Amino acid sequence: MHIHYLDAVRAKRPLVHSITSTVAAHFSANGLLALGASPLMANSPAEVAELAAHSAALVLNIGMPTDAQVEAMLLAGEAANRAAVPVVLDPVAVSASAYRREIVAKLLARLQFAAIRGNAAELAYLADVPWQASGVDAGEGSGDLAAIARQVATRYRCLAVLSGARDYISDGKRLAVLANGTPLLLRITASGCLLSAVLAAFLAVTSANERFQAACEACASYAIAGEQAAAGLAPSQSGSFAARFIDALAAISAAEVAAAIRIETGE
Amino acid sequence: MHIHYLDAVRAKRPLVHSITSTVAAHFSANGLLALGASPLMANSPAEVAELAAHSAALVLNIGMPTDAQVEAMLLAGEAANRAAVPVVLDPVAVSASAYRREIVAKLLARLQFAAIRGNAAELAYLADVPWQASGVDAGEGSGDLAAIARQVATRYRCLAVLSGARDYISDGKRLAVLANGTPLLLRITASGCLLSAVLAAFLAVTSANERFQAACEACASYAIAGEQAAAGLAPSQSGSFAARFIDALAAISAAEVAAAIRIETGE
Amino acid sequence: MHIHYLDAVRAKRPLVHSITSTVAAHFSANGLLALGASPLMANSPAEVAELAAHSAALVLNIGMPTDAQVEAMLLAGEAANRAAVPVVLDPVAVSASAYRREIVAKLLARLQFAAIRGNAAELAYLADVPWQASGVDAGEGSGDLAAIARQVATRYRCLAVLSGARDYISDGKRLAVLANGTPLLLRITASGCLLSAVLAAFLAVTSANERFQAACEACASYAIAGEQAAAGLAPSQSGSFAARFIDALAAISAAEVAAAIRIETGE
Repeated sequence: MHIHYLDAVRAKRPLVHSITSTVAAHFSANGLLALGASPLMANSPAEVAELAAHSAALVLNIGMPTDAQVEAMLLAGEAANRAAVPVVLDPVAVSASAYRREIVAKLLARLQFAAIRGNAAELAYLADVPWQASGVDAGEGSGDLAAIARQVATRYRCLAVLSGARDYISDGKRLAVLANGTPLLLRITASGCLLSAVLAAFLAVTSANERFQAACEACASYAIAGEQAAAGLAPSQSGSFAARFIDALAAISAAEVAAAIRIETGE
Repeated sequence: MHIHYLDAVRAKRPLVHSITSTVAAHFSANGLLALGASPLMANSPAEVAELAAHSAALVLNIGMPTDAQVEAMLLAGEAANRAAVPVVLDPVAVSASAYRREIVAKLLARLQFAAIRGNAAELAYLADVPWQASGVDAGEGSGDLAAIARQVATRYRCLAVLSGARDYISDGKRLAVLANGTPLLLRITASGCLLSAVLAAFLAVTSANERFQAACEACASYAIAGEQAAAGLAPSQSGSFAARFIDALAAISAAEVAAAIRIETGE
Repeated sequence: MHIHYLDAVRAKRPLVHSITSTVAAHFSANGLLALGASPLMANSPAEVAELAAHSAALVLNIGMPTDAQVEAMLLAGEAANRAAVPVVLDPVAVSASAYRREIVAKLLARLQFAAIRGNAAELAYLADVPWQASGVDAGEGSGDLAAIARQVATRYRCLAVLSGARDYISDGKRLAVLANGTPLLLRITASGCLLSAVLAAFLAVTSANERFQAACEACASYAIAGEQAAAGLAPSQSGSFAARFIDALAAISAAEVAAAIRIETGE
């Protein structure tokens, strides 16, 4: 499998505007910078529309939402939609509170997303599939993950990326299942948030009809950088892993991704 | 000394809701995750009561307080009190401003805490003992640290944990003095904030009459993980230490804590 | 060249109050602590005037501005001006939005800064020199960097520090060009923000007529600690570098700075 978009990210250094949580902001910015993109964190309603319209992609992450931040998300999202800037939604812990459910409903009603990325519990909620979640983790649950990804993509007319031990990527028709990754990625806070930002960086350098492929490459680059960073570490070494993962995001090459990718794609 | 609660934290993965400062959020979340707990950071008044009621413990940290955050703390704290969810107060730099003194007075008047954890200057303020503090550090001062811990516990009918070169843990009657730790823990920002969160994780898996013991174990696990992480590092290597400390929190075993603990308990 | 102020920072442990972005808060606090200063992060309008007046220096960083934070910056800045506490401005991405341009105009109109530190694009904007910027990075541009630094210093009657591959430091009359540093410093988020905080720590221990020299030493200590941390690392290892840089800020000695400094000073 040829990897097209990683080098494009590094060549174009897309400006990725994130409206995200306090927990994820620093790690996401460092990860984007390591990958080769240009991070921009800003969440004041007074400036986000202007910034989003001039960005190459926008990420809306509801990890620690407030009313002001939601107002900013709507303003930024509408400006991005008008300017054809791709927008990625990360519906963190959407089912954990009525407030989050309302926020996500509002965002989905008023904005058109290029992609939605979340864990199984979050995407199951968006697909109306019963799921037992606990807090912000994916929790335990049964359900056809591929069907959930496909349903989210169909319902919201966008890419759906359901990430976990395996990643399920769908545009409603096609489905890819990615088997790369490391459990250590689940042991560091905001790793999902950073994946959403990395996905946005890949979509920023891709035309609309190549987004499915770009999303597969984004997830693969991320997961394989994780494998590289985890090599030689014990499962408990999440602190060391976090630093090495940033290193790996900067060093990983398209050839390495192509050689290590384990993905199955079908209709 | 047998260590009971560390394995319980890992088995139950308690959801620990923190309302904390921008500085502490990411490090606290990573530390809780490494330890085996499940972190939840959220501070909107619109959702914290619902989240706190469904959490296993709540941490209120006034490191960077705002009016909205204080409103959220009161709502979350009252919901936690109603649901018998243990609440930990971290009165960061309480004596540094009139605003912080008022906030802490309000929190203490309206909420029942399971534990209060702070440094000597912070707990001396709560115990009405004169203390010379400088900023958010403990500063220099004299005073009977054991008496301060005991007085805070008695006055606020909760556990008091006074941490520093030695930790003083009291429930008003009993007093434990823990001699473990490393100066490197004082060289990383938010290490006290994370200890408050770790304490909350231990209280989350403990019945009310075992909390004194659980608090001793929380402080010991934390301090001994620090000793492990500091092994082989120079006193200046706080950057390297921070990553290794996260690793150590994940790897440390109850047997290791039991073997290394240096604690004296009395009436 | 004799290095005077690094040891003074460590001896006096100045309290440096920062009003800064979510992205920069934790890294800045850790860096200040490593250097030997005492960080204080607080941004509520309800307490910042009191805190700033009792601090040894104040940093105002517009990386993620909000209306409430700007209000806090004005209150803190005015209190610092009244108390003769030196104030450092970091005009992050000032030209990226109308909102930031207005904020910086307001801050410059109402406050007297001891120093302004930014990259070439940010200082070019303040000097009214055309510059092509992209997002929060310096972007590409031509222009006489020395002239820009000098003009910012003259116009705002303060020190100007233009940082990049080389740092240009001017008080309007004198100009120093520092050639130390490592590209890895540009690969970690908030490294400029931390440099502004480090600059504030040096100004905190310096009388007003020694500030030019102190600023040169601050930039040199920072850049040479970066060189030490980068030794043996690949250009991609920004994650590892960040931890080692914190270590180096704590370990670096005045003698090491004096031996490694590459600076040219002129009128």
